Amino acid sequence: MTKTGIGIVETKYFTFANQPDEFILESKEKLSPVTIAYETYGTLNKEKNNAVLILHALSGDAHAAGFHKGEDKPGWWDNMIGPGRAFDTEKYFVICSNVLSGCRGSTGPASVNPKTNKPYALDFPIISIGDMVSAQKALVDSFGIDKLLTVVGGSMGGMQVLSWLVKYPQSIRSAIPIATALRHSPQQIAFDEVGRQAVMADPNWNSGNYYQGNPPDKGLAVARMIGHITYMSDVSMAEKFGRQKKDNKQPFKFTADFEVEGYLRYRGDNFVKRFDANSYLYITKAMDNFDASEKKPFHESLLGKSVKVLVIAFKSDWLYPAYQSKEIVKACKYAGIETSYCEIDSTYGHDAFLLEIQEETHLISHFLKSVSQKRGKT
Amino acid sequence: MTKTGIGIVETKYFTFANQPDEFILESKEKLSPVTIAYETYGTLNKEKNNAVLILHALSGDAHAAGFHKGEDKPGWWDNMIGPGRAFDTEKYFVICSNVLSGCRGSTGPASVNPKTNKPYALDFPIISIGDMVSAQKALVDSFGIDKLLTVVGGSMGGMQVLSWLVKYPQSIRSAIPIATALRHSPQQIAFDEVGRQAVMADPNWNSGNYYQGNPPDKGLAVARMIGHITYMSDVSMAEKFGRQKKDNKQPFKFTADFEVEGYLRYRGDNFVKRFDANSYLYITKAMDNFDASEKKPFHESLLGKSVKVLVIAFKSDWLYPAYQSKEIVKACKYAGIETSYCEIDSTYGHDAFLLEIQEETHLISHFLKSVSQKRGKT
Repeated sequence: MTKTGIGIVETKYFTFANQPDEFILESKEKLSPVTIAYETYGTLNKEKNNAVLILHALSGDAHAAGFHKGEDKPGWWDNMIGPGRAFDTEKYFVICSNVLSGCRGSTGPASVNPKTNKPYALDFPIISIGDMVSAQKALVDSFGIDKLLTVVGGSMGGMQVLSWLVKYPQSIRSAIPIATALRHSPQQIAFDEVGRQAVMADPNWNSGNYYQGNPPDKGLAVARMIGHITYMSDVSMAEKFGRQKKDNKQPFKFTADFEVEGYLRYRGDNFVKRFDANSYLYITKAMDNFDASEKKPFHESLLGKSVKVLVIAFKSDWLYPAYQSKEIVKACKYAGIETSYCEIDSTYGHDAFLLEIQEETHLISHFLKSVSQKRGKT
Repeated sequence: MTKTGIGIVETKYFTFANQPDEFILESKEKLSPVTIAYETYGTLNKEKNNAVLILHALSGDAHAAGFHKGEDKPGWWDNMIGPGRAFDTEKYFVICSNVLSGCRGSTGPASVNPKTNKPYALDFPIISIGDMVSAQKALVDSFGIDKLLTVVGGSMGGMQVLSWLVKYPQSIRSAIPIATALRHSPQQIAFDEVGRQAVMADPNWNSGNYYQGNPPDKGLAVARMIGHITYMSDVSMAEKFGRQKKDNKQPFKFTADFEVEGYLRYRGDNFVKRFDANSYLYITKAMDNFDASEKKPFHESLLGKSVKVLVIAFKSDWLYPAYQSKEIVKACKYAGIETSYCEIDSTYGHDAFLLEIQEETHLISHFLKSVSQKRGKT
């Protein structure tokens, strides 16, 4: 077996059409049918106790590792998943699914509403992080897995980790929330809101009804550009771009003069090719509404639970600052949960959770080893 | 005389129509006629050595203090200017002018192009911070003032201060750059660029030709919302809004649920009433292009100059972080200039330069007193 990655993979789909009761949302609304796009890597063992659930961030999807046939770009966390990697597919069975309300195969606002035979658009119900997690739980149950070895994710993926801890602590042995928060601060809400405003300001958005015409690409590109600034750091931008100018032969007055401007435009333009603007609205709203202490203080949800937690933060992450990770650690310790915390000294900002592979591999592989060794005891 | 403020003021206009040679821009383009809107407070003394020039930030204007007839909102730095205030109008003659390329009375892209009898729109030439300062110099000259007591401003106003130090050091006794930078970092350029993209994404912008129709209000509002997030701090937003929700009786799915969302929308909507979108593009571009070391290292421009400098920064200002102010201090000291530095322990973020009145008053009134006392000697 090659040690260089997991090779060709494909996305699978799981549809819960016949179990509508499972999709009563936290808002009490019902959603049916529900399809969840997912991928798996590695093999589920006979005891079904080697499964790892990977949870993606705002713009991620089920394709976490390997290559889709004919594509030359691997999954979004490929360097963490595979033989000998942090999530070692020779040991673990790795599952990653696209979130409910997403646009990469799972049911979302672009899906067809069976009542109208048209895309839901804004008739799609408001989705919570807890709803995303409930859908994942049903998917995990379908494999006959009683207890996941771990649930892990960065940013919004980390919020899903925290939601698993609140909703299904008995179904996980451990949890790894990375670069995340118990709830969004007003600054985080503000950045999301400006992104939503940029989308809704685009006349092509048309109150969400654009599936027959041109989508609000310009608005969504602006939203993505704002996002990209918050994912990097002052230092990482200085290192990557400085004040380097682009080679514009006949510049328009407001052309991209600086490299950093060209980079943002490029990232914005690329994003709209693969993302649905309404999904952007629904998913960011789910993040803003999330509060791990919504029903009761987070630490109370954990009291008496047998779960091990590894919290990871990054020094230069100003979007999800380390103090928010420390609040998670504090609550876990207060509940008597075995908790480790590491603040990685990275300059990459929030993006570090996708880039600091060596450090994360070291921390996570040791953590998983210790959780695995405890399997018999818990 | 009342100590409560300077009362009713009015904006005046100075037109340089007959001196076209003075308006050769740094780009070598000519601009004529040029009108500069300005206000003055206090009285110019016989020696003409008590004049203070106040320089505004991106969205400011000539109306720095007092009230316009019939209005109940004072000028943007009113609590700093007036009898007994930091810029004491019983001692000093205070001048504030709207920048060239602005939209509050000075010549800008919304002004009529004499060649076409239509607004310039994007035919308006690219303006530099140095061009803004050259226009101010001509205005100051028109009063017969040889040497200003000080030039002072925050944010883009601070860039103009630095430009005065480079271009006209012999015409100023002192300079007070506040919450500013020798040049924009790529992160600062990135935030400006996303604002410009938001404006240009609005179809009403129409390549700048919107003066006969509807202006790009939605795009400009988004740009302003992005700005507002960067002007506050994580802490000040948490203190002001927390996660407090608005009282929405029949909420639309993407209505402003949180107070912070409502605040941003309000600030965005208000801004478009008083600001021209093309001016926003030109002014932010001037900021991004500015580099105090463009022609030679900043400290070399100051060698042998007799000018005293007070640099002020704010701890929670992450848009113009204190390290950028320290670079100014370092360069001034390297050039042998008498320089004081104060980092004010404020939670207000970049907005602090408009809000930390007590601290700024203390620092600036003492500084001006010491500069005034030296008047005879220099």
